[in-house]
Amino acid sequence: MSTNLSPLFAPEGVVVIGASRQSGKLGAAMARSLASFPGARALVNARRPEPGEGLYASVAEAVAHTGARLDLAVLCVPAAGCADALAEAAAAGCRAALVCAGGFGETGPEGGAHADALRRVAHRTGVRLLGPNTSGFFAPHLGLTASFVPAAGQLPAGDVAVVAASGGVNHALAFDLVAAGNGISLGVGIGAGLDVTSADILEHLAGDGRTTAVALHLETVPDGPRLVEAVRLVAAVKPVVALVVGRTDVGDFARSHTGALATSWRTTRAALRQAGAVVVDDEREMVDALTALSRIQLRPHPDPGLGLVTAQAGPGLLIADRAGTDGIRMPELADTTQGTLRGLLPPLTYQRNPVDTGRPAETFARVLAATATDPQVDLLAVYALTEPDSVDLATAAQDAGLGADSPAVVVVAGLPEDVAEQRARLHKAGIPALTGPASAANAVRAMVTHARQRAVPTGGAGQEPAASVPSGQLDEDAAKTFLTELGIRTPERVACATRAEAHYALHLLGGPVAVKVLDAAILHKTETGGVHLGVRTPDELDAALDAIGPDLRYLVEAMAPPGVDLMLGVRRDPVFGPVVLAGLGGTAAEALADVAIRLAPLSADEAATMPDDLAARALLDGWRGGPELDRAEFGRVVSALATALAVSPDTAEFEINPLRLTADGLIALDAVIVPAAPPAQDH
Amino acid sequence: MSTNLSPLFAPEGVVVIGASRQSGKLGAAMARSLASFPGARALVNARRPEPGEGLYASVAEAVAHTGARLDLAVLCVPAAGCADALAEAAAAGCRAALVCAGGFGETGPEGGAHADALRRVAHRTGVRLLGPNTSGFFAPHLGLTASFVPAAGQLPAGDVAVVAASGGVNHALAFDLVAAGNGISLGVGIGAGLDVTSADILEHLAGDGRTTAVALHLETVPDGPRLVEAVRLVAAVKPVVALVVGRTDVGDFARSHTGALATSWRTTRAALRQAGAVVVDDEREMVDALTALSRIQLRPHPDPGLGLVTAQAGPGLLIADRAGTDGIRMPELADTTQGTLRGLLPPLTYQRNPVDTGRPAETFARVLAATATDPQVDLLAVYALTEPDSVDLATAAQDAGLGADSPAVVVVAGLPEDVAEQRARLHKAGIPALTGPASAANAVRAMVTHARQRAVPTGGAGQEPAASVPSGQLDEDAAKTFLTELGIRTPERVACATRAEAHYALHLLGGPVAVKVLDAAILHKTETGGVHLGVRTPDELDAALDAIGPDLRYLVEAMAPPGVDLMLGVRRDPVFGPVVLAGLGGTAAEALADVAIRLAPLSADEAATMPDDLAARALLDGWRGGPELDRAEFGRVVSALATALAVSPDTAEFEINPLRLTADGLIALDAVIVPAAPPAQDH
Repeated sequence: MSTNLSPLFAPEGVVVIGASRQSGKLGAAMARSLASFPGARALVNARRPEPGEGLYASVAEAVAHTGARLDLAVLCVPAAGCADALAEAAAAGCRAALVCAGGFGETGPEGGAHADALRRVAHRTGVRLLGPNTSGFFAPHLGLTASFVPAAGQLPAGDVAVVAASGGVNHALAFDLVAAGNGISLGVGIGAGLDVTSADILEHLAGDGRTTAVALHLETVPDGPRLVEAVRLVAAVKPVVALVVGRTDVGDFARSHTGALATSWRTTRAALRQAGAVVVDDEREMVDALTALSRIQLRPHPDPGLGLVTAQAGPGLLIADRAGTDGIRMPELADTTQGTLRGLLPPLTYQRNPVDTGRPAETFARVLAATATDPQVDLLAVYALTEPDSVDLATAAQDAGLGADSPAVVVVAGLPEDVAEQRARLHKAGIPALTGPASAANAVRAMVTHARQRAVPTGGAGQEPAASVPSGQLDEDAAKTFLTELGIRTPERVACATRAEAHYALHLLGGPVAVKVLDAAILHKTETGGVHLGVRTPDELDAALDAIGPDLRYLVEAMAPPGVDLMLGVRRDPVFGPVVLAGLGGTAAEALADVAIRLAPLSADEAATMPDDLAARALLDGWRGGPELDRAEFGRVVSALATALAVSPDTAEFEINPLRLTADGLIALDAVIVPAAPPAQDH
Repeated sequence: MSTNLSPLFAPEGVVVIGASRQSGKLGAAMARSLASFPGARALVNARRPEPGEGLYASVAEAVAHTGARLDLAVLCVPAAGCADALAEAAAAGCRAALVCAGGFGETGPEGGAHADALRRVAHRTGVRLLGPNTSGFFAPHLGLTASFVPAAGQLPAGDVAVVAASGGVNHALAFDLVAAGNGISLGVGIGAGLDVTSADILEHLAGDGRTTAVALHLETVPDGPRLVEAVRLVAAVKPVVALVVGRTDVGDFARSHTGALATSWRTTRAALRQAGAVVVDDEREMVDALTALSRIQLRPHPDPGLGLVTAQAGPGLLIADRAGTDGIRMPELADTTQGTLRGLLPPLTYQRNPVDTGRPAETFARVLAATATDPQVDLLAVYALTEPDSVDLATAAQDAGLGADSPAVVVVAGLPEDVAEQRARLHKAGIPALTGPASAANAVRAMVTHARQRAVPTGGAGQEPAASVPSGQLDEDAAKTFLTELGIRTPERVACATRAEAHYALHLLGGPVAVKVLDAAILHKTETGGVHLGVRTPDELDAALDAIGPDLRYLVEAMAPPGVDLMLGVRRDPVFGPVVLAGLGGTAAEALADVAIRLAPLSADEAATMPDDLAARALLDGWRGGPELDRAEFGRVVSALATALAVSPDTAEFEINPLRLTADGLIALDAVIVPAAPPAQDH
């Protein structure tokens, strides 16, 4: 199969199979949409050919008559006829095909058989197949509209590509991007993805010079590692902004739609982020992010500073409040900058950041330039109302040198026609123009996120090859011994086969100790009365051992100092493979699903950023005089654990819970290793 | 002072004081903006009068020459001259005034003196004063643009009113509302609010027949109870949608802007919600909410069901996913509805809800009608791409009877001009049209929130008059005895003055018990070693008493069964007065500020809704087989506590922490009552 998608997205010629003259039919809509394609074009209808009218009986006949290379076949025939039609097209020289119809895998056994047949023909012939169950694609700069939505033909060419799971979302995003003043380089709806997937298209876009930024919409992920690799490839050279559906359980409807199972929303988002994509929450945020990132990117920076110049205090306050909520730093401007601003602005205006100019005067461009070039400012946001007898904002922004070398986003508020005029001029100058405080805040967040993500040192494992996990069921003592080998601190402890050994252990360790049942088969020892804390005296020890019961092994362990409990786990995700999860201990954090996720293995530097994903991260930073988490130490612990899982095929998962943050650093208080089930297991 | 704002917002005549012919001056901009006002209009410039040109030397002269009633004076003179100008205007018969300039309270002592002088004149003369520090207001249906932003004169008249803390936000919101297809009834920026406040304008709008919904933007709240009363008044007759700034600490900049202290963001939002406002997070959500609520409101309903009909599965999935995230119920359609849909739609489409129609066919209107009238559906959301040769969506929506009697929001996607045309027709038919999945989800959330809030039974205290809190410092035993009087359960306990009494208490209660130091002056007894749990034997009791120390009183108390710990507190908010706060116990909930707030006193029914505000509420609903919170019992406990604070002027605050949820219901495990400080205290 060809990995080259040029026959699909940049064909020399196109043939519509099942073309129709009957308005309302798919074959008629496609023929009409493709009418403006400037390359070769042929229509085929086996049942009602009209060769004199350019409606041929077969692809071969069309090729013979037109003498053209018809790379792309657009199949407008029922599901049951698609496999045969594709085979015929391939035989006649087509190298790519689009199937829009439904009636395949999503509809039950009969449709599944049609899908299998179609997939087999594609694989056998090497034809790259987009669909089925999509409204198609469009490449405006080629005049190529392979979509049955007529308005798609009027989308202006530009530099944003859309890769959407759904044809409807492809169109919706493209229309939204255009409404925000952008143009489209390529827009694709994947549909069922029998052959061509999002990953294929991302690989294609990595080398597409026209595209400066990519919108990625995902509903399901058929091949996690492949998708991650493709996102990584694109994100290394241009921004990818991703929207993932499935925060709630929309599985039943989603399955009806694509015939595929929904994957884990949180894990998918984490994987995309780690691969370099900027992940957003809805399609508006996506449009705002792309309006900015398709024009300007910040240099990689762990914490870029935002400067804000506003002509109206109230909207400026809305932007500042949202930026603060998003954790974006708004540094106080340098004394020299404030000195410059004092010379440019009326007295009594606020000049520390935000800079409140009042009604823009002729100094506005110099105010913008001074703020943008402040040493603490990495990105400038500008807000102003258009006022005909005031400063021309687009001109001022250009005079201030805003653009790629002096990153900025500009909001021009006012009547729609005034805003559109200013926006067009700002965009022409390469300066992203947004439509209000919320959209500016979205753009700022996307740009800052993009800069921060690229400042995280990556590089695969980056870790010394770890020992692999010993095989078989490990009890807590063995699991902790293995943690020690990984360089993870555990409490002093003695595994005891008898009560006498337990008493000797208490004598050795001194009180207070924790006394636990030691049995790899008992997973919930706390719930079953197998854990006794704060045991100080031989009497208390006897009481604890009595409670645990006879004929068992015991673990006697020094009590750890108080601190903040974390949870750290590595497991195998069915879609993405080894992943690591970290969160705070306790049920509240769990109920809120406040967890940081990364693909494993990963470097210690990369893992060190995980705590900052947590909503409750304040608890790790000296909450009420408590201990502060050393991010580097945490990164080493996570990386060691994640690397160990990656090199241990016999281990299914591995959890340290709690991993306690103390004044002396991290210490693992309990550990569970779950061996992989035998391969023949049911799932 | 007149409470009637008609002279301000509907004057017979307007006079601009400090009018100027010099372009760029405020006095020129105002004169130009007011030029289109069809009522009487006069310009005054004391320094450069040109009576022949209609530029008079004084207001009295203008009145004499024009013979008109000049209700509204627009003052375009420097801050230092405003008080005198206002006095002159009042003497000449003006009953309302607008001051746009800055240079008053926000700029230091000199400006403060100008503000005081201006306020005194307003109070003495009874002139209602809007400003200073605002860009003004506009009333499009009267052709009245008292704003120095020229584009404001082009805002179409309509039925949404804007009441914004900031003049800039007033304009920004009005432009955004218009861009979304709405018109404006009145738009006001409060500015410094020396006289006219948001509460005044809300009271005015309650009786304004032109206004069907109100946008309320708040930065500070000068008088909490007055604002709450005004919001309640309006919300009883038309929707109020509120946006509150100050989630993050933007105080320094905010003070520079309005000269006022920022209030508590969470408490303000809670108070507004309780008064009936729909609270939103940003200005886009506000516009979406008003686009819907100004046209259609659901009947009060504790949990309205959402039906969704979509012509494109992918965007429908985005809407369904967001609705699920927002906690909105999407019921499966009734069998009869599904039967009807089967007859209208092609086989294999999803018909349970969402209803996935595929490309709209001539049955589309009947599909909409069938879904909208399903007994489980209280609100219908519709998504479709415009397609010229497909069904006309606006016509289908009307044919389906959508509108006030069959509530719906409709998204029409496509090219901007197609969307605008469809939207105009939908709006004309009273059907809210939105611009995409996120905006539809915002509109749905606002409508559902509005319906839910009105379904909560309110009615002030609604509680039997509670005993007031005993005065003075109360120790834990006395505090718990008082809780018992309020009908709140506490553990069995014995207050002990000696070790012997403590031993007798252990004997009486049986083990295990909690042993605590009993001293009203010790607030953090756990941290200071004053609490010992799980004490079973006389030896353990002696150890606990030794640890607490000699010469103290002790509380010996039965241990409560395990459960989920909550925190419940009542305190006095400096702006809103008595408030009640409830959250989950533990540091994670605290770090996340996951807390429900209500104004006190409140009824048990109203208080019963508080747990559902909590992000971690799943922990209260039988998390992992744990206990389930009885909302009615919780409501009674909260209402009793809140009512007690309201009738106890000597008490500053009162906290139960933890309030444990057990299998047997709620039980208060610790309680602290803080007496009010003497009135002369420093703060």
